[in-house]
Amino acid sequence: MQDVDLEALIQGVIDRNRRMTAKAMTLLESRVPEHQEMAAKIMEKLLPLTGNSIRLGVTGVPGVGKSTFIENLGVYLADAGHQVAVLAVDPSSKRSGGSILGDKTRMEKLSAHANAFIRPSPAGETLGGVAARTREMMLVCEAAGFDVILVETVGVGQSETAVAAMVDFFLVLMIAGAGDELQGIKKGVLELADGIAINKADGDNQDRVAQAKKDLENAMHLILPATAAWQTPVMTCSSVVEKGTVPVWEKVLAHRKICKASGDFDQRRKNQALEWMWTLVDEGLKQMFKNNQNINAQIPAVSHQVAQGKISPSAAARTLLSYL
Amino acid sequence: MQDVDLEALIQGVIDRNRRMTAKAMTLLESRVPEHQEMAAKIMEKLLPLTGNSIRLGVTGVPGVGKSTFIENLGVYLADAGHQVAVLAVDPSSKRSGGSILGDKTRMEKLSAHANAFIRPSPAGETLGGVAARTREMMLVCEAAGFDVILVETVGVGQSETAVAAMVDFFLVLMIAGAGDELQGIKKGVLELADGIAINKADGDNQDRVAQAKKDLENAMHLILPATAAWQTPVMTCSSVVEKGTVPVWEKVLAHRKICKASGDFDQRRKNQALEWMWTLVDEGLKQMFKNNQNINAQIPAVSHQVAQGKISPSAAARTLLSYL
Repeated sequence: MQDVDLEALIQGVIDRNRRMTAKAMTLLESRVPEHQEMAAKIMEKLLPLTGNSIRLGVTGVPGVGKSTFIENLGVYLADAGHQVAVLAVDPSSKRSGGSILGDKTRMEKLSAHANAFIRPSPAGETLGGVAARTREMMLVCEAAGFDVILVETVGVGQSETAVAAMVDFFLVLMIAGAGDELQGIKKGVLELADGIAINKADGDNQDRVAQAKKDLENAMHLILPATAAWQTPVMTCSSVVEKGTVPVWEKVLAHRKICKASGDFDQRRKNQALEWMWTLVDEGLKQMFKNNQNINAQIPAVSHQVAQGKISPSAAARTLLSYL
Repeated sequence: MQDVDLEALIQGVIDRNRRMTAKAMTLLESRVPEHQEMAAKIMEKLLPLTGNSIRLGVTGVPGVGKSTFIENLGVYLADAGHQVAVLAVDPSSKRSGGSILGDKTRMEKLSAHANAFIRPSPAGETLGGVAARTREMMLVCEAAGFDVILVETVGVGQSETAVAAMVDFFLVLMIAGAGDELQGIKKGVLELADGIAINKADGDNQDRVAQAKKDLENAMHLILPATAAWQTPVMTCSSVVEKGTVPVWEKVLAHRKICKASGDFDQRRKNQALEWMWTLVDEGLKQMFKNNQNINAQIPAVSHQVAQGKISPSAAARTLLSYL
């Protein structure tokens, strides 16, 4: 990366050159300060070219069939002429170097498709860092002319919230489980959903899927929709039936149309950008706080005293802040 | 407040002198730096005497009968010899001076009870500030020997999260509404609940309550419980029937017993104290950031550029942080 020609790299992204696009993303992921500066310059140049994609987030617990769903939908869209990029937010990923073998194996057909680009989750220690890089990768993909961005999350930690905050439509994939319990959705995830799809609606699973759909529809009535104009639908889909994921895509398009007409679409994107700025400010402040060696040395002892009830949380906070 | 004798004030609280307890709380609420210093000293002295109450949070949308529920339960507990304090978190409260007329009118019997103490929500501009003061008022009440603290929240904004983070049991009151919609619970609130009670289970309302109970139980199966040892129960109660709120209290006691045995009780309190410390650190950092005049002058223009897509959120955050 010594002799990076920034202009060539930017032009390469704009020309949808895969190697250049991947290289720009590697710069984004780098923690070398010099690379980060270059990445910031690239982002500023690409920014005017971003925003023109359909951003779809997909979550669901392991076993729900996320990868197969994304492959099925991705191939359908790529066949139809869309340029499809698949990104992921997985803070548990310990990927080193840039191997994308895992994702390529998981999405064999899609990864071989001329109109598709798959990039695994950036490695990182904090969800904030991983989400930050994924969000910027999404912008790089848009600048490169990808018009559908699928952002997958593995459903651990708070990654759903991070993904919901960067997409136009947040899809929760589920399967019909034993009894009426479905599969123990994590706190708050249903309430982030713009749509829920019960996967594996095929073969002799259909009755259980119909029951799960009914249960979920009842549950969703208890939750106020995020957008007045849109009531979160409960859909069914299959990744083994041909075009089994198309009804979900049609809902994504319907949502887009309704929200663009109501102004909710623009408002959501603006809010996401502002929230994003404030998240980065907060993280910057926390980083500054934690990088302060005096403070860092005090945290274990102060935390222990708070947990033991020896000092009050407010006295502890005052003590720590006083070192700034 | 000029000549506050701190030792006398602290002893007054310990002796459960109402005037002194109220005075300590007024110091806690004051924004005069000198008062805040005194309040901090009082808190440190009282801290060893805190922690010995049952902390019950109560939420529910307006019309659900929160005040009558609290009055009914409070009178029952006070009659049984408990010392009952009622606090509130209401960031929309614009109370001036310290009038508690509103709450006294709402809870006529309880406010006249020798074993009860009612203090309305601190006034404040931010939820964080209001919650901070309520949390410290709770500690003052515990030091004064109140063994049941009822913390009410009005169900606006994020006040439920703030209250759930300071109590041992978070109760969501509901009523049976039209059809299966109940009353449009706010996002995330059901998932904070340690118990749900459908109020107004009396007279000819009983059938609707039974149906609502069934719907809610189905919905709650979709949500992972916060504590492995405890599945959030859906109860019914009435504030017009004598002892109509007692079954709810019995669940609170059952929850306490189970969570103490499993260790979840101590863990929850420790976690709450640590989370509280970090919340205060974060707020202190944000305050420092917003008090910086150079930054403050830049925020409107920078926010506008982000909303318009002229600069990226990360460049904007870097710009703002660079002024620190």
